[in-house]
Amino acid sequence: MPSANPADDTAAGVEIAALLERGRDLSTPVLRAAVNRLAAPMDTVASYHFGWIDAAGQPSVGEGGKAVRPALALLSAEVAGARPEVGIPGAVAVELVHNFSLLHDDLMDGDEQRRHRDTVWKVHGPAQAILVGDALFALANEVLLELGTAEAGRATRRLTVASRKLIDGQAQDISYEHRERVTVEECLEMEGNKTGALLACAASIGAVLGGADDRTADTLEAYGYHLGLAFQAIDDLLGIWGDPVTTGKQTWSDLRQRKKSLPVVAALAEGGPASRELGELLAADAKSNDFDSFSEEEFATRAALIEEAGGREWTSQEARRQHAVAIEALAGVDMPTHVRAQLAALADFVVVRKR
Amino acid sequence: MPSANPADDTAAGVEIAALLERGRDLSTPVLRAAVNRLAAPMDTVASYHFGWIDAAGQPSVGEGGKAVRPALALLSAEVAGARPEVGIPGAVAVELVHNFSLLHDDLMDGDEQRRHRDTVWKVHGPAQAILVGDALFALANEVLLELGTAEAGRATRRLTVASRKLIDGQAQDISYEHRERVTVEECLEMEGNKTGALLACAASIGAVLGGADDRTADTLEAYGYHLGLAFQAIDDLLGIWGDPVTTGKQTWSDLRQRKKSLPVVAALAEGGPASRELGELLAADAKSNDFDSFSEEEFATRAALIEEAGGREWTSQEARRQHAVAIEALAGVDMPTHVRAQLAALADFVVVRKR
Repeated sequence: MPSANPADDTAAGVEIAALLERGRDLSTPVLRAAVNRLAAPMDTVASYHFGWIDAAGQPSVGEGGKAVRPALALLSAEVAGARPEVGIPGAVAVELVHNFSLLHDDLMDGDEQRRHRDTVWKVHGPAQAILVGDALFALANEVLLELGTAEAGRATRRLTVASRKLIDGQAQDISYEHRERVTVEECLEMEGNKTGALLACAASIGAVLGGADDRTADTLEAYGYHLGLAFQAIDDLLGIWGDPVTTGKQTWSDLRQRKKSLPVVAALAEGGPASRELGELLAADAKSNDFDSFSEEEFATRAALIEEAGGREWTSQEARRQHAVAIEALAGVDMPTHVRAQLAALADFVVVRKR
Repeated sequence: MPSANPADDTAAGVEIAALLERGRDLSTPVLRAAVNRLAAPMDTVASYHFGWIDAAGQPSVGEGGKAVRPALALLSAEVAGARPEVGIPGAVAVELVHNFSLLHDDLMDGDEQRRHRDTVWKVHGPAQAILVGDALFALANEVLLELGTAEAGRATRRLTVASRKLIDGQAQDISYEHRERVTVEECLEMEGNKTGALLACAASIGAVLGGADDRTADTLEAYGYHLGLAFQAIDDLLGIWGDPVTTGKQTWSDLRQRKKSLPVVAALAEGGPASRELGELLAADAKSNDFDSFSEEEFATRAALIEEAGGREWTSQEARRQHAVAIEALAGVDMPTHVRAQLAALADFVVVRKR
């Protein structure tokens, strides 16, 4: 009987829920110990961000993230023939960089909600959001480098390159919001930087820590990079058509933020009547002063035009294309059969997820 | 005939101006090349911050910083018997971390001016200040790690620890502003984190890159740490009694920002009549709604009380004490005589500087 939870469905009998849980269970204690090193009140602010305490400082069970990155980092160690535990510092470092970027991005974008809770800058103020983000970024390198091995040095170098791409992607994302037209290629480049680079690092960092050579690490990076693009394509679909109850975001979330996401740029590029009508509406929206008071119907109209111009279907196909490229990349690396099946199942999970 | 410029005066015939210039001349081209790697518009924003272009994007000759850190990093390589050039990536990495912290601190503190120019968040907005700060931080690790050597891994680890302390120090600085009382010990701990840690790193990073052992690096760190505390004590004096024309800051700058700097906390700890009067005034100031409209005379009154309670003299002596500890630390390391004289002369320069 198929489960109601997509995390239980698997392509090859792999239990995704268990895989994600393993990543979370093994990395969270190390992550918490790292965060506890921060000087007050940054430890408290970070604990709030991770959902370990509520705004009043009381212990809470937040929903956390999906934990795809830690799961990847541990599997990645197994690709190199190491125990999954070897990937833990990599999993923690990647999570720290990911959360550093969430703290800063939420502030830059003015986002008030994340994972159904007020964002850090909203609760603790902008200065703490900046500071704690900085601290998590520094901590990421510290956690790796204190291993003191040559492998840790190589892993840190890859993480640093991924972090810089992440920052480049956020810079592009911000600059695109002010531009009238963004090409599909520019959007894909931005999403590759913003989402692909860090997933690429997650997918290779365990292997690097486990002593894999550069070719293996590069191939795993390619898998993670395209997985990241598939992940982001799904995210872009959820950002417009996702169920607010499941995503924890507002209806038409990305449209409200005038995001030039994949469905939008693909629809604008199509050039037919719906595409042109959408282009005129969005151009007028960019100049509008009462955009914030738009009704549900006005956003629904825009969403319908995006769909009519093929933006929804194109993005959905793009997720499948990137998924296929990711799986193909895996063929280039020798690894235990069960690890290959698990990496493939994680890729499947990413393109069927609902949040 | 003694020169009018303190940078020309030397304790042991060392030309400080030439030493600072060497650090600047050797590190700036590498720093500029690193900054040029940033995605647009971050490269432009960073170039503005460093004073290489003006707000309109035209080339300019900004005054830059004093460049004490690059000078230290190059000397540090010579301590290890390496050529000064070996310290260049270290000098650049330390400058990148220093400037990352300036970009974020100016935004968090709401500072509108630095080096006689509008700060980045004032010209390019808060989002760019956050983003470019993040990018410079990432770039610092990248510049070191791409050397690909074991020494670079060790140097990056020390830089990461220093960066975390820098962030801890800023967290303490912010939290102290909201507290009525801060002890002298707390203030010294904060200044050690905020200024000492990175100067400690600058003073050891060249040696680490030059292959020095941990004991040598730790001893150089001790020299740099106490030099940093001496530097900060002088900075705290200039923050109250510095000449605005020379410092580029407002009169009574730190008093206007209600900073719990060393002269203030030392004066408050003294306990005599002037100390108590100062305490009452500052307690009332903390609750005042029209603090921003205070006249020059009102700040002058507070400065006079700080001086009367011995805060100015104590801080001046503290700078000399820390200077002495820094010089003493140098005795623990073998190094060429001219390098020892140059490190000593740099320490002398730090405690006589006027900006």
